[in-house]
This record gives sequence, C-alpha cells and structure tokens, in this order.
Amino acid sequence: MNFNNRIDRRNKNCSKWDMMENLYGISSQDGLAMWTADSDYPTAPCVREAVQEAVDHGVFGYGWQDAAYLNAIQWWMKARHGWDVDTDWILSSQGLGHGIAMALDVWTEKGDAVAIFTPVYHEFANKINKSGRTVTECPMVLDGNRYVLDLEDAKKRLTGREKMLIWCSPQNPSGRVWTADELRAVAAFARDNGMLLISDEIHHDLVYAGETFVPMHVASPETADNTVYVTAASKTFNIAGLRTGNMIIPDDTLRAQMRNRINALDYQPNTMGIRMVTAAYTPKGAEWADAQMVHLTEMRDLLHDGLSQIPGVKSMPLQATYLAWVDFSGTGMTHEEIKTRFRDGAKIAASDGPTFGTGGETFMRINFATQRHIVEEAVRRLQDAFSDLQ
Amino acid sequence: MNFNNRIDRRNKNCSKWDMMENLYGISSQDGLAMWTADSDYPTAPCVREAVQEAVDHGVFGYGWQDAAYLNAIQWWMKARHGWDVDTDWILSSQGLGHGIAMALDVWTEKGDAVAIFTPVYHEFANKINKSGRTVTECPMVLDGNRYVLDLEDAKKRLTGREKMLIWCSPQNPSGRVWTADELRAVAAFARDNGMLLISDEIHHDLVYAGETFVPMHVASPETADNTVYVTAASKTFNIAGLRTGNMIIPDDTLRAQMRNRINALDYQPNTMGIRMVTAAYTPKGAEWADAQMVHLTEMRDLLHDGLSQIPGVKSMPLQATYLAWVDFSGTGMTHEEIKTRFRDGAKIAASDGPTFGTGGETFMRINFATQRHIVEEAVRRLQDAFSDLQ
Repeated sequence: MNFNNRIDRRNKNCSKWDMMENLYGISSQDGLAMWTADSDYPTAPCVREAVQEAVDHGVFGYGWQDAAYLNAIQWWMKARHGWDVDTDWILSSQGLGHGIAMALDVWTEKGDAVAIFTPVYHEFANKINKSGRTVTECPMVLDGNRYVLDLEDAKKRLTGREKMLIWCSPQNPSGRVWTADELRAVAAFARDNGMLLISDEIHHDLVYAGETFVPMHVASPETADNTVYVTAASKTFNIAGLRTGNMIIPDDTLRAQMRNRINALDYQPNTMGIRMVTAAYTPKGAEWADAQMVHLTEMRDLLHDGLSQIPGVKSMPLQATYLAWVDFSGTGMTHEEIKTRFRDGAKIAASDGPTFGTGGETFMRINFATQRHIVEEAVRRLQDAFSDLQ
Repeated sequence: MNFNNRIDRRNKNCSKWDMMENLYGISSQDGLAMWTADSDYPTAPCVREAVQEAVDHGVFGYGWQDAAYLNAIQWWMKARHGWDVDTDWILSSQGLGHGIAMALDVWTEKGDAVAIFTPVYHEFANKINKSGRTVTECPMVLDGNRYVLDLEDAKKRLTGREKMLIWCSPQNPSGRVWTADELRAVAAFARDNGMLLISDEIHHDLVYAGETFVPMHVASPETADNTVYVTAASKTFNIAGLRTGNMIIPDDTLRAQMRNRINALDYQPNTMGIRMVTAAYTPKGAEWADAQMVHLTEMRDLLHDGLSQIPGVKSMPLQATYLAWVDFSGTGMTHEEIKTRFRDGAKIAASDGPTFGTGGETFMRINFATQRHIVEEAVRRLQDAFSDLQ
C-alpha cells in the first residue's frame, strides 16, 4: 500500500493526463494533472486480484448485478456508515453522473427548474442544462472558513418551477461534512418546497479523522419517500473508468419508476465493474481505504501548508474529499490572471472555480490524490508562479 | 486456441448458467445452458493480454472512447467487411440492445409503431414494448429452408404509424446472410415508407465459409441519411459482459441528435470495454476469429446432423451465427410438449421460438458456441428425449 510509487498514467486512455493538453493547453510532458477527480495510484490489491481472476477465467459473457454485489454494498454501508440498506433498494447505475442524469430524465420535464447549493460539483449544472432543465442557484454562505446554508435566502430564490434539489454530501468542492441537523434541514427544505431530493454521497468514504459522515437516510429517514441516494465505489477505490455506481431508492414507487426507465433504455451494468465493487466492499477493501486516508491526510496538509505561505491565497480546511478548494481573492488578481499563472507559470491543470457556480468566482479546485512528489512539485510551482506576492 | 477445453462458468456471475434454474427450472448441476447468445470459451488471447496490462497498471480512473479504439473499429470494418467507416461516425453504446433502446428513445415517440421482420431477435419487440411503442410484425416467408422477405405483404401490414424499422443482418435466429439486393430492397422499403432504418449487424463476423456478409452501408450507401448501423465486438469475441457496442451514424443530423441524448443521459463507455475492443479489432484478433469459425462450423454440423436424425425435426441450414433455429412442427407435438421435453427430458435451456414473434411458434433456438462435449451431450439428450419418434 505505497501510494507514493511513481506511476506514469500518460498514453493509457487516462482523461486526466491525456486530455490536459487539449482542455488546458498544458503539455503532459511537463504539466501536472490535478483536475478531474480520480487518483494517480493503483486501486486496492483485493480489487486487482478480482480482475486477475477474471483474466484467468477468460470468459466475459453476460452477467448481472448479482447477490454478491448487492450484499457487498449492504455490508459496506452498514459497516462503514451505520446505514441499513435493503438490497432490494439498490439499482446499479453507470456511475454517479449517470444516476443524476437518469433522475433528471425520470422525475423532471423539459422547462422544469432544479435547485443546487453553490458552489457545487460543476456537473450538476451541466447535466441540468444538457437535459433542457434550468438551474436555480442557492448560494451557500461563508461562515469563517467553511460553508453553511442559508435556507431562508434559498427559499426566496425558488421560482416555484423547481421539481428537484440536487445535494452533495460530503460537499464537493468545499470538503464540508454536513451535520445530521443540517441534513435534516435540507431534506425538509426539499420536501416542503415540492422538490425531490437527489443526495450525491459519492465522497462518503473520503472523510478525515475527527469527522463523521452521516448518510442522509440515517439523518432523515422520514423523508426517504422523497429522496434518491446516489453513491459509487469509484472515488474511494479509483475505479471510475469502470462506470459502475448505485442508486439507492427505499421508496417503492420511485424505485419502480427508475427501474422501468432503466429497462426501457436497456442500461445494464458491466461485469467487470460489478466484480470490482464486490471485491472492494470487503474488510480488505476497508483496510486499504483506511490506509488511503492516512496518505490523503498527508497530502492535504502538505498542499494546505504550502499554499498558505502565498500571501492572499486561502485553502479551505477540508473535512472530506481529496479536492482542495483554494481562494485567490486575496491576491487582488483577476481570475483570468490566476488561470494564466496556473497554465503558463505553474503548468498545473486544476478545475476552474467559476464552473462550480456562484461563489466559485475566485477559486481553483486542486486534486491531490496523487504521489507525494507531485504534490510537492505543485506546491513549489505555485509558490514560484505567485512569488511576486511574497 | 482450443475451444474445447472444459471450462466451468457456474457461480461466476454468468447469466447463461447461473440464471438457468430461475428462468427455465433446469438445475445447473446437470442442465445444459444453450440459450443466451454468448460463448462458453475464453476470449482471444490478445484481448486477455490487454486486460492483463490493465491489471498490471492497476489504475482504473476516467477514460474515453479514444483514437486507438476508433481506429481499431475503422480498421476492422475495412479489413474484414470492406466497409469504409469514418471514425467521426462512431458513437460508443452500451452494447447492441442499448443502441437500439436509445434509437427508440431519440427517434420515436410513445404510441409510434416500429416494424420488424419476424421471427427475429426477441429483444427487438421487448425493447419496443418497454419503451411504450407498439410492434408491427411483418412475417418473413419460408422459401425451402431459408427465409425471404415479402415486401408487398409487409407494405400491407404497415398502419401508417411506423416511424422505424429494426432490421437484423445476418439474421438472428435464422442465420440468413442477406444479399446486397435484399439489403437494398429493405433500405428502400424503410425510406419509401417514412421509417428510419436501424440495422443490427452484430453477427457480421460469424459467417460461415461460402457466404459473404455485406454491410448495409456498402449495399445501400444512398440511404445512409436514413440509417443507423449498430454493431459490437461482443458476439465475435465473447465480451458481452463488458457492455460496449457502437452506433455508426454517417448522417450528421442523426448523429448530433444521438450524441445530444447520450450526453444528456451521461452515457460514457467503460475503459475496460474500450481496451478489450481495441485489442480485439487487430490482425491477431482476426486470426482468432477465423479459428473460432472453424470450431463453430464443426459444432454447427455436429448439432445439425444429430438433430436431423430425429423424425420431424428440421434444423435450418445456417449461413451465419452460432444459433441453431430448429423446427419441431414435424413432430406433431404442441409447443408446450416440446418445451417440457427440453426441460424435463433433455434438461437443456434453449430459447423459446414463440418469443421471436410470428413464424417462431414451432421453433427452439439452440446456442452451440460451446465445447464439443457439450454439443455432443446435447445431441444425445435430445435424441433420447424424442426417442419415441424413432
């Protein structure tokens, strides 16, 4: 479990490194890819062993989301998050994004509005727009160096056309772990305003020591008939390429609606993703996930401390996720200038704050799920790129 | 490349063997699974090597349908089928069924009718019905021991509500390889009757010596603006579990419509499927596919000759596919009796003829993409189960 072994991901159908030049104008020869949310190190040995078994067997015919897979998810949610999930509630998706897109397709119509609390994972707004729905932004409020909700303000922003609220817990990009009270308030807010709640909990395992992730369903079981929980093992185990996630839907009616749509579109999970998740959601996988958090804690602190030495730059203290949320407003520079310094000075591809919606205007999101030497190099480069501020 | 090595697929998330008991009431302890269309032997060594490389790398983050994948498809279609495919035309799907389901979603509305020539792959009608459209059956006609089309009769069966024609070439379940003239006639029939043509060509590689598969686009380039070609490497290389297929759409408008829908639903191919197809569509893969046809030819003849010894049983001479289409009408038995003898006598799970639509009433479809000892055993068991006819 050495997360610092040097691994070259380039030219291996890896979006994060191979698309950097096209999307950011930064060559992968000397650039650092710190944008899209996957990790630069291998998945858990138990997952690789499961794939090895599949290679040795050699037959890759039709399969399905079998009992072993469903039981593994049930075990993980209970053992790791104290969440009792009935295996009947689980519908496999193609990953978190697909789950959200399907929810938009099933439970909203063209022209409906969908509420989000910003800044938030940019794909929420992208998916809402691509499906012909409109975004209603409810900005979060900064309380010191963490975001909180202002539900009174949010209520005023609703137009009456909102049919859905897409929620992110733990929060991407700010790394907030929400309290049970906050979760209950959001669930009630959605219900009271006639919005179906889609709770994205994909970062649930990536929580730092001292914080406790509370599943929405545990915090607010009474709103389960108005909620769809979307999760995946992909962030925790770095298997996003396998496109396998889950929709957990306790409500029979909602689940039947989604199942019918999945069947009509003939979405079926791939057997390798099923196999990998089944192997990941085990005690061995848990051990690896714990070891990963030790590594991520080190990388989080390394990046945070390094960035804090640049005057005017403020990295948000993270309670969860491997995504640093860094505010450059104190530098007095325009956002274009910040982006130019990332691209031409530091040669670092990071996610652009404004794409996360209102509140992200002065930020950059930096993915540090990588080897120590890359995080160290990133710190050096950013300190250099902004050295005139020293 | 020994296709006869004994391989136990049971309890490995394998639909064909593990679902047999639930769906057919036949125990996998002593039953023979000869229904769903995958193969019981391992995929090509070059494909397994590609998966091995992925295991050795160990990082399974985000990827996409990269140039290597698109170029491999282009190479295969040209080298194997004389078809010039522009890589821009290719949109990855989750497999053939998903491609058809998406086509129904994009280009038809609830209440529209969709035409099919029966008997045909049962999933056509299933998908049409599940999506809230209705099926218009146009029965094929038996000319000796092969099916031909009667387009004058088909024309009379159209109600005026048909917006789409789903076509199968080579034909499943009858194993017909269509001539260029027949393909042109079908393409014109679709166009002249205001139906978009969806051409399922998934069995294109599984063609026996003496026959030549002609891609619809090669036969009828002039109707490309009214046609979507759906293919996959999954039948040829036994990788259906990876859920990776292709829609090949030369028309810019149709392709943009499909791409928008794919983006809205956030369908993205999984990297393992991409990797496997890229490795399969190579000269090494072609060599393996050729070797497989030698094996399939032997299995086809073994099954055909064995069944032909049962009075009243007629196995259709196959020009393509590993799916025998066997007519039991000459036995004088009811179809229920035939099914009972398969289940309780032979303990063979085979696909039920009537599910393929009008014309399939007296048939069973038997998958012989397996080891010789299983085909031999199947022949013995069927001869025994119908021995009172001797």
